Amino acid sequence: MRKVYLDNAAGTPLLSEVRDAMMPYLGEIFGNPSSLHDWGDGAREAMDTAREQVAGLIGGAADEIIFTSCGTESNNLAVKGLAMAQQNKGKHVVVSAIEHFSVLHAARTLEKLGFEVTEVPVDRYGAVDPDAVRRSIRKDTALVSIMHANGEIGTIEPIKQIAAVTREMKVPFHTDAVATAGTIPVDVKALGVDALSLAGSQFYGPKGSGALWVRKGVRLIPLLDGGIQEGGRRSGTENVPAIVGLGKAAEIAAAQMSARVGRLSPLGDRLLKELPGKIDHVVVTGHPQDRLPGHASFCVEFIEGESLLMLLNSKGIAVSSGSACTSRALKASHVLLAIGLSHEIAQGSVLMTMGLDSTPEDIDYVLETMPPVVDRLRQMSPLYAKFTKSGKGGNQDAHL
Amino acid sequence: MRKVYLDNAAGTPLLSEVRDAMMPYLGEIFGNPSSLHDWGDGAREAMDTAREQVAGLIGGAADEIIFTSCGTESNNLAVKGLAMAQQNKGKHVVVSAIEHFSVLHAARTLEKLGFEVTEVPVDRYGAVDPDAVRRSIRKDTALVSIMHANGEIGTIEPIKQIAAVTREMKVPFHTDAVATAGTIPVDVKALGVDALSLAGSQFYGPKGSGALWVRKGVRLIPLLDGGIQEGGRRSGTENVPAIVGLGKAAEIAAAQMSARVGRLSPLGDRLLKELPGKIDHVVVTGHPQDRLPGHASFCVEFIEGESLLMLLNSKGIAVSSGSACTSRALKASHVLLAIGLSHEIAQGSVLMTMGLDSTPEDIDYVLETMPPVVDRLRQMSPLYAKFTKSGKGGNQDAHL
Repeated sequence: MRKVYLDNAAGTPLLSEVRDAMMPYLGEIFGNPSSLHDWGDGAREAMDTAREQVAGLIGGAADEIIFTSCGTESNNLAVKGLAMAQQNKGKHVVVSAIEHFSVLHAARTLEKLGFEVTEVPVDRYGAVDPDAVRRSIRKDTALVSIMHANGEIGTIEPIKQIAAVTREMKVPFHTDAVATAGTIPVDVKALGVDALSLAGSQFYGPKGSGALWVRKGVRLIPLLDGGIQEGGRRSGTENVPAIVGLGKAAEIAAAQMSARVGRLSPLGDRLLKELPGKIDHVVVTGHPQDRLPGHASFCVEFIEGESLLMLLNSKGIAVSSGSACTSRALKASHVLLAIGLSHEIAQGSVLMTMGLDSTPEDIDYVLETMPPVVDRLRQMSPLYAKFTKSGKGGNQDAHL
Repeated sequence: MRKVYLDNAAGTPLLSEVRDAMMPYLGEIFGNPSSLHDWGDGAREAMDTAREQVAGLIGGAADEIIFTSCGTESNNLAVKGLAMAQQNKGKHVVVSAIEHFSVLHAARTLEKLGFEVTEVPVDRYGAVDPDAVRRSIRKDTALVSIMHANGEIGTIEPIKQIAAVTREMKVPFHTDAVATAGTIPVDVKALGVDALSLAGSQFYGPKGSGALWVRKGVRLIPLLDGGIQEGGRRSGTENVPAIVGLGKAAEIAAAQMSARVGRLSPLGDRLLKELPGKIDHVVVTGHPQDRLPGHASFCVEFIEGESLLMLLNSKGIAVSSGSACTSRALKASHVLLAIGLSHEIAQGSVLMTMGLDSTPEDIDYVLETMPPVVDRLRQMSPLYAKFTKSGKGGNQDAHL
């Protein structure tokens, strides 16, 4: 059976070049980078190189990079650390309604510490309106955190325009770029942000690797207290192999970016264009143009996304019904509800994210496998039976 | 030149069996353990195995293990998470004066959130008196955190006796077992603690791996908010290769523990016994009996530990002058000051920690290399010149 992995948003495979770069640090170069002897030197030099590579990917300076253990840690450090550092100014935080839970739930924790949180709504494509951000900022706003792109619906946010607002209003601005860094061009100077999160497992780097870029001069309270690693901003013995892998993955991503986008975009576009022609009642989610390359997200009415996922899995196809971080919660996605979908439609959420291994033949296989699988599920659906009996079957508004 | 690595406290090399166990998860099994499809299954099953292995090492249950990114994260999660969860009871925390900075500085952060912190002193061997812990506990004490052993001076604390006190007084008790888990027998039931931190890089497992064991029923506020990984207690995409490596290292450590202790103990004992006979004015630090196997710590008067470290490095020997986490801070160790040493003596701190690769010949080499190196440093020391001129040179109280 053909094996088709279309769940790169949940994690990309590790590039063999990245693994090769990591191997010495899983072997003879095992020293602690903080050690003052020769055994520490090799580890420390490797970290310096990785810091340059990660900074290079996003147009920052090496000493502005804080290595973390994942995107979730980067986001927690940014949201809690920047807000806490600004609390003399005020205890108000602005986020969008479709942030990843590592931002939203970090904001919830701030609420327990006396902060107020404003959630800026999004339009039906999931886009944040920079003017809505402007209206939500108050005198006591300590932080704005809006994601660069949403991994679930693929929408890329107008970060540059939002940054113009936050700069004018002198509020620190963090963006969660976990879905974009290493995938599409990200330049902290061009974007104009003050802090940016990224994760290696999103661009063919290792799990357990992440970084937070923080503009020089912006204060941050650490999340992990302890020694003096990462300039005291993130203590803990450094995960040298993961950091080396993150650096290598960043270097390769920067070099191959336009080629990758050129390969991925047509694959995603084709799925989004052709699927609604093969299956009735498909609602494409996310922005029609401003979206991640190789990213197809939609809701199939009258089925449950998890059931579709299972059936496709039995046909060798890996997809997701939303964020992997919450896939076992089996609740309607807050992102889909925020773009105005009903609980019923949101239930049928499917997310297909292509990667470097994806081929046009994979897409052929998905396009031919999907319709009978959806049919089979709908035949078992009481809702669909009710719907077709009601005679509304002809009103196939999502059928192009 | 002979190469002798005596800085295992800063990090142990990765066992080749551990690396082999990790390799598939740096290759074909790259899925996200939270994914519901086949690609997630292999990763999830591997995590289940690792959870059993880590629980097995410390006599806990698998579902009581929370995987983290390092010992520092485990300690921060324990200290902040347990204290915050208990704050309805009160805002007072008890630690010892010689905790690792990941505990001490986490406690400092709690102070900023309105907690009070009592530091229990230690005796000249670095031992905590369980009665002193009893006297420090108040009605509003939310947490006691005392380390199982101190990595800098090797002293093993009377955790069982302290746990008897905390149990009687109904206060949650966390122990930082980063220096002991995987090195000497650790059993959470026998110790009677409520939470315990460990780190893979201390027992031939990978960097970037750690765990916090929390007794079932003990509440904990997460440090990293986000998805539902680790039962919502530690969000973030799981670092599967590191977790697999941690599990394998735990399994091997449990099987080989008594053999390892039997090999390491005589090496450390020999250094501690013979060095003061070869070098004048050496002050052995830590407990004479209750100490980590293969652990030799002492202060060499009239020299600086960092200078000795550098000179030994040039002879192929890796040692440390204290905790790697603070080695670049070049300040007198809080641990050495807490056991009553003067700043002057604490400056000459040297830490030699043996590992599985250490041999009796390594110890021979160290014992023959040290005296001329110390002599050379002392010849450059104005303090030593003053001391010998004063005629006190004959009073070699540390010379056995």
